[in-house]
Amino acid sequence: MKVNGIHYETIWLKPGDNSVVQVIDQRYLPFKFIIADLITAEDVFLSIKNMQVRGAPLIGATAAMGLYLALLECKENDNPDTILDEKALYLLSSRPTAINLAHAVNKVFQNVKMVKELDDKIKVARETALDIINQEKDSSLNIGRYGLPLIERLSVANKGKPVNILTHCNAGWLACIDYGTATAPIYMAHDSGIDIHVWVDETRPRNQGSKLTAWELQQHGVPCTIITDNAGGHLMQHGLVDMVMVGCDRLSLNGDAANKIGTYLKALAADDNNIPFYVAVPSSSIDWSISDGLTEIPIEERDENEIRFIQGIRNGQLEELLIADTSSKITNYAFDVTPARLIAGLITEKGICKPEKNSILELFPEKTQMT
Amino acid sequence: MKVNGIHYETIWLKPGDNSVVQVIDQRYLPFKFIIADLITAEDVFLSIKNMQVRGAPLIGATAAMGLYLALLECKENDNPDTILDEKALYLLSSRPTAINLAHAVNKVFQNVKMVKELDDKIKVARETALDIINQEKDSSLNIGRYGLPLIERLSVANKGKPVNILTHCNAGWLACIDYGTATAPIYMAHDSGIDIHVWVDETRPRNQGSKLTAWELQQHGVPCTIITDNAGGHLMQHGLVDMVMVGCDRLSLNGDAANKIGTYLKALAADDNNIPFYVAVPSSSIDWSISDGLTEIPIEERDENEIRFIQGIRNGQLEELLIADTSSKITNYAFDVTPARLIAGLITEKGICKPEKNSILELFPEKTQMT
Repeated sequence: MKVNGIHYETIWLKPGDNSVVQVIDQRYLPFKFIIADLITAEDVFLSIKNMQVRGAPLIGATAAMGLYLALLECKENDNPDTILDEKALYLLSSRPTAINLAHAVNKVFQNVKMVKELDDKIKVARETALDIINQEKDSSLNIGRYGLPLIERLSVANKGKPVNILTHCNAGWLACIDYGTATAPIYMAHDSGIDIHVWVDETRPRNQGSKLTAWELQQHGVPCTIITDNAGGHLMQHGLVDMVMVGCDRLSLNGDAANKIGTYLKALAADDNNIPFYVAVPSSSIDWSISDGLTEIPIEERDENEIRFIQGIRNGQLEELLIADTSSKITNYAFDVTPARLIAGLITEKGICKPEKNSILELFPEKTQMT
Repeated sequence: MKVNGIHYETIWLKPGDNSVVQVIDQRYLPFKFIIADLITAEDVFLSIKNMQVRGAPLIGATAAMGLYLALLECKENDNPDTILDEKALYLLSSRPTAINLAHAVNKVFQNVKMVKELDDKIKVARETALDIINQEKDSSLNIGRYGLPLIERLSVANKGKPVNILTHCNAGWLACIDYGTATAPIYMAHDSGIDIHVWVDETRPRNQGSKLTAWELQQHGVPCTIITDNAGGHLMQHGLVDMVMVGCDRLSLNGDAANKIGTYLKALAADDNNIPFYVAVPSSSIDWSISDGLTEIPIEERDENEIRFIQGIRNGQLEELLIADTSSKITNYAFDVTPARLIAGLITEKGICKPEKNSILELFPEKTQMT
């Protein structure tokens, strides 16, 4: 998507220097647009862990590039396969919830293992990582195409009045490579002339909604309004939301969706007000091995200082404030799981399905053996 | 309750000077403990509007004192009744949602109208305001007494393991005169030796949970943990909440409860996880004239800058940061309404009742004529 009129994706190889991976440092948006260079597997690990990059598809793509950089780091006496084993585990430990990380690392790992020479391994790693990036881009585009008719139908039902979509966190192009997951249908609807407006949950504690989603929607000209995470239920009670659309960090095969903490509360409110709640989920975010999201998806607990401190701008400078007493105890769960029963449908790159095993596998029959 | 070992209430007449009302300026807690002097009705209006004082019972008590100060301001040629009419309307316009404001202003207004001389009016206004303060204190104590057995029963059921109570916003002593509404049973349970732990919702955008509730619970030694507003559903899904207890800004006669924005989402999560959701509500917060909270209770929309900026501490100084882009549109609803069907019970100063007209009026038969 465009940033001040120039097309960007979220990750790329530095032009003219294939040994450097570049990403948008998302910790400083919307206040500063900073490109970061990743040169080592450790850079990638920290980039994911510290949320310089975030969003399930982008985490996967960045980790894939991490294995490529790990192989580039191999010295003459290193055994590349040993390095690969070690760095794969290392990268997998960067964040626990998004399954894309495991899918991407495993894919590069397996492809690289199939060739012998270091130069070939490096080439295969790079190509596999670039493949993953391209596949994520395609998935977003197709999620957009399959999701668009849902919005078109609401627009018709609204007789031309704006379609109000509520979203939580950032499942936009910044979370992916381009277009986004939850935002892909929104961008397509906007581009096709549908009158659309997005309620953007602030998304405490890291404010990915107010800082990232609002920014990228505005860059593309999509009307949107930031609200607190507390406000969505009230809006739904008063007919101000036509649809909820969110992303997903890991979907279990029974259709339970792990996503940013607070998603479950919006799903409950949507259910209570008969508003359709859709989850945009590329197959890279589906965990084919688990069948109960609520008990089996690991929920990351992050540093309490994400809640105790906050970053923002004062006198043009990025600064940090203490917003809760240092003596207060704080707990910071980063995700929750929305049970399948609250989800109207899953929007995947292969079409829309119900949040249940059979319906999911109808779209992805090749995965049946993995379940 | 005690602040650093010294007993405070939230509002009082300045010792030795009955012409000054003193309050704790709650905008600076937990970082600074500042006592503010209110000398005119305008001071009171601004104190309520700018949330120097907040919380339904305290808003009512402060407004009552506002009419007393308005009468003290009367000059020789003023007609006290004209001033009274004008200032009553003025004070009533300070905030729209909490019904305590209207109850308190009307009570002072009516009592003052019954006497003729200015000196008598002043005396009656002061005495009525002090009566309201004392009644709120009594109500909190009785809410504590009636709510305590609910916690005792959970403690027995938990076989001595801590009782986990989730609360939203601040319905503590800071919202009242002393003891609090939702916190009164909590303080009593703690004082009677019950092992108790409180999950404190941060409560965006003004963070009354992390800034006020956590502070006052800690001052009293009650174990508590701050969480984001997004986290409660996840905690409930995983058996980490035994009860939800919140306050109320206005209860309609059918049992719908207006409270801080986001309360409804917690009620939905409690319902979805079979966790009892209690509303602590003194009769001063009951609107006897309306029978449908969702459509009839006015919901305040506050300044968007409450979301766009945030206050906190940096280098020991209180500062303000911009945390959402200045070009982003923001909407700030301050309350939502939790439908009666999601409420397990109302804890009033006269006992616990069901959230329905007949059950409420059984406790307050003298109000039947008002409905």
